[in-house]
Amino acid sequence: MTSEVLSPDLEAAVSAAAAAAPAFAATAPVDRARAIVAVADALESAKTRLVEIAMRETGLTEARLSGEVVRTAVQLRLFADTLVDGGYLDARIDPADPDFALGVRPDVRRTHIPLGPVINFSASNFPFAFSVLGGDSASILAAGCPLIVKAHSGHPDLSDATAEVAREALEAAGMPQGVFHLIHGREAGVAVLKDSRVKAGAFTGSIGVGRLLADIAASRPAPIPFYGELGSVNPVFITVDAVAERAEEIAQGFLTSVSGSAGQLCTKPGFVFVPAASALPAAIEAAAGDFLAEHRLLDPRIARSFEERRNAILGSPGVHPIVPGGIRFDDAGQGWATPTVVAVALDDFRRAKEALVDEAFGPLSILVETPEGTDLAALMPEFYEGNLTGTLHLSTTEATGETANAAELRALVDALSRQVGRVLFNGWSTGVAVTPAQQHGGPWPATSNDSSTSVGTAAITRFLRPVAYQNAPAAFLPAALRDDNPLGVPQAIAPAGESHAWGNRWR
Amino acid sequence: MTSEVLSPDLEAAVSAAAAAAPAFAATAPVDRARAIVAVADALESAKTRLVEIAMRETGLTEARLSGEVVRTAVQLRLFADTLVDGGYLDARIDPADPDFALGVRPDVRRTHIPLGPVINFSASNFPFAFSVLGGDSASILAAGCPLIVKAHSGHPDLSDATAEVAREALEAAGMPQGVFHLIHGREAGVAVLKDSRVKAGAFTGSIGVGRLLADIAASRPAPIPFYGELGSVNPVFITVDAVAERAEEIAQGFLTSVSGSAGQLCTKPGFVFVPAASALPAAIEAAAGDFLAEHRLLDPRIARSFEERRNAILGSPGVHPIVPGGIRFDDAGQGWATPTVVAVALDDFRRAKEALVDEAFGPLSILVETPEGTDLAALMPEFYEGNLTGTLHLSTTEATGETANAAELRALVDALSRQVGRVLFNGWSTGVAVTPAQQHGGPWPATSNDSSTSVGTAAITRFLRPVAYQNAPAAFLPAALRDDNPLGVPQAIAPAGESHAWGNRWR
Repeated sequence: MTSEVLSPDLEAAVSAAAAAAPAFAATAPVDRARAIVAVADALESAKTRLVEIAMRETGLTEARLSGEVVRTAVQLRLFADTLVDGGYLDARIDPADPDFALGVRPDVRRTHIPLGPVINFSASNFPFAFSVLGGDSASILAAGCPLIVKAHSGHPDLSDATAEVAREALEAAGMPQGVFHLIHGREAGVAVLKDSRVKAGAFTGSIGVGRLLADIAASRPAPIPFYGELGSVNPVFITVDAVAERAEEIAQGFLTSVSGSAGQLCTKPGFVFVPAASALPAAIEAAAGDFLAEHRLLDPRIARSFEERRNAILGSPGVHPIVPGGIRFDDAGQGWATPTVVAVALDDFRRAKEALVDEAFGPLSILVETPEGTDLAALMPEFYEGNLTGTLHLSTTEATGETANAAELRALVDALSRQVGRVLFNGWSTGVAVTPAQQHGGPWPATSNDSSTSVGTAAITRFLRPVAYQNAPAAFLPAALRDDNPLGVPQAIAPAGESHAWGNRWR
Repeated sequence: MTSEVLSPDLEAAVSAAAAAAPAFAATAPVDRARAIVAVADALESAKTRLVEIAMRETGLTEARLSGEVVRTAVQLRLFADTLVDGGYLDARIDPADPDFALGVRPDVRRTHIPLGPVINFSASNFPFAFSVLGGDSASILAAGCPLIVKAHSGHPDLSDATAEVAREALEAAGMPQGVFHLIHGREAGVAVLKDSRVKAGAFTGSIGVGRLLADIAASRPAPIPFYGELGSVNPVFITVDAVAERAEEIAQGFLTSVSGSAGQLCTKPGFVFVPAASALPAAIEAAAGDFLAEHRLLDPRIARSFEERRNAILGSPGVHPIVPGGIRFDDAGQGWATPTVVAVALDDFRRAKEALVDEAFGPLSILVETPEGTDLAALMPEFYEGNLTGTLHLSTTEATGETANAAELRALVDALSRQVGRVLFNGWSTGVAVTPAQQHGGPWPATSNDSSTSVGTAAITRFLRPVAYQNAPAAFLPAALRDDNPLGVPQAIAPAGESHAWGNRWR
């Protein structure tokens, strides 16, 4: 049932992953948790060596990369706890009900099982946290799915070295052979994504590539889910009162967020709607001196693309620089940038929408000066499709919800909710906490599938599907569904005898 | 942002649905529950009138249709309870954590919000339960999404009459204008599915049409989720000991399941793997006398298609009739059928796989006689892709899991789990209980998206997406996420201070 003939190396990886799927799915959660923690520990043990390779390949700083290794390890350990907790299984038990409203109800129990082999296309901008052992990989392994990582071409040596760490730790922890594979090259990735034995895809990258891969996944003879995190410009709205209350603090936070990791973050605030004639642009200009250190962009392609976008934005009618910034290229072709902040009046933004509204991947942000009385909620659908985040900065008084403009602010929050995955208040969208309630994903084109998240423990659900068992003898039930609950997972039980009451309370 | 210009009627429906979306999403759960119960009550009040129309349009019996109205009403009321309970919102609260392992953690809270307008393509074979007010419609309305139903061409008058009941009840219950629309015609359905204001699709029908619509949903400029329930042949496995223990009981249950609703159910057992030389075929032949009443098939197209499949199966080498059955056409072109059961040896089945393995929609089932020692688990991937159900009949002793063949039986249960959405023991797959733990959906081509169910309360999650709120003032939080929990929904709270312990237990 293979879709096309794979090269011998890819065939070996895919057939090993497929062969390992039943055994991996059958591992006890605590054993899978131990293996994942062992991977996290091994990753941290190899930190010095891996960060050295990463610095050379990505140009990111040692501090940033070391922090990212810790984040990646913590994330793996969090998934270990998540999978032992078992809440993600959403175990449901409906005991048999002889008095059911529609005739005798059988015993029905439902849990979730791993999908099978998954391919994860890793990202360039987080060589640890969204790469070989990043959040997607952690949730795929935690779910019990064999993993095939397609390395990002921006850090091939780091990918190989990280994969070696992962393979050794998984094997030493007693996981089945064949649960982890690394492959290189876009054509290889596409071939694997098309293979009928592969049951889902994950991706972090551009809208263009993400769309291409999503279309491939959807057009297979048997389509599969494809979870792509694509592009986002993360609009920010700042009220008059917030500027009046703390312009300097907002300016500092904004510049920190725009310049961090040289602006190469999917959550960088790309557009800030500020009140016209407010003190904020001047405060940003005044604070900019602390943010003029030059940073290398990830690779020459990204640098050239950033230069092009930056030129187009600076050349657009009505756009004027607040913090000029710049980009230069070294002899090796690498681009080095300092942050650029520009401002544009809302009317000019509207006229130049086509040129301005797309993502500029790098340290650049656009202040849109909005006249008093602008319907802020209407700006979201006017200018944007889906986004990962949307942010609102309010004054302390406005935060009570009792000011004269409270209804407008609520309308803006609703408008943001409808178009983004995470709505922030008085903060900045870069820095995505890895927690149970995190949501990193939003309507197209922020993600190719906005029913889930790629950061936080809910990410595990992407690689599972529900299965129900009807009148199963205890000896044939999955452990999560047994009455004696040997795994100690949460079980939602719907007692018999309730059905005649359904709806009665709401008449 | 509309993808193509709609006819005035369709434009009116879609724009009204889009305009109603924010207000409908903002209705209090208890108010939406009241409206849905009002719809259920109105449906039952109109039962006599609606069943009359349905009998004329579908040929189904009064008893079956009356029961289906009750089921449809009970289902609506169950969703009313579900939405007030609020567990489906999966509300999560991570309080701020100054001691978080990766630096200060903000307060993050996550819930689910309605997607917006949804189109539901209704089915022919359940003119109530999978039609205008069926399970898909109930879960769409319960989720808070405006609903556009594309009527099935098999019962247009019934669809109109049911829609009238729904519209009046929703309006009388104070729901916003524009939350319910009925449209007719496949072209109209496709145009609406393509419209950028429509955010998801649901469908019950054939693999061919389902694939067409799924491809349209996936290839839009902004792709949307498409939940299609397509085809299924529902394999059954019966052990030697089960036949020895209760051949007559199994034969009765089998014939009831195959002949009910003239076999026009997506869960009809299409293939039964029986031990070669067992007593079951004779028991089925002996019991067949009780099942010879002729039933009209749903429409002439389905009847002709059934006749064609039946002829192809009967003409396939090695296939011999156990219960001959038949089909005749009346002067109006309607087909009238009695159940057909055939048997074929496993080797002949293997040789004629192409001709035999597809669904025969109507009262026909194939017994596959498997020699002793056949690896039953291997038959699933050999013959089938995804299915809605898979069934195993065991003897009382085998059900203990302690017989000599227990490992083989477990392997078969695992194989079924990997390819179906519901695994049944000692029962029949027709008759799908509407309960919290139900799973009606499975891997392609049983459904176009196997991450969810189209029957049972979990169906509501298809029409929602997660949104997180970071550091939101209480005045701007959705009710489900507030500390004072005014809706009384389940809230999963991840206390601060835990992160340093993650993974420690699993070293």
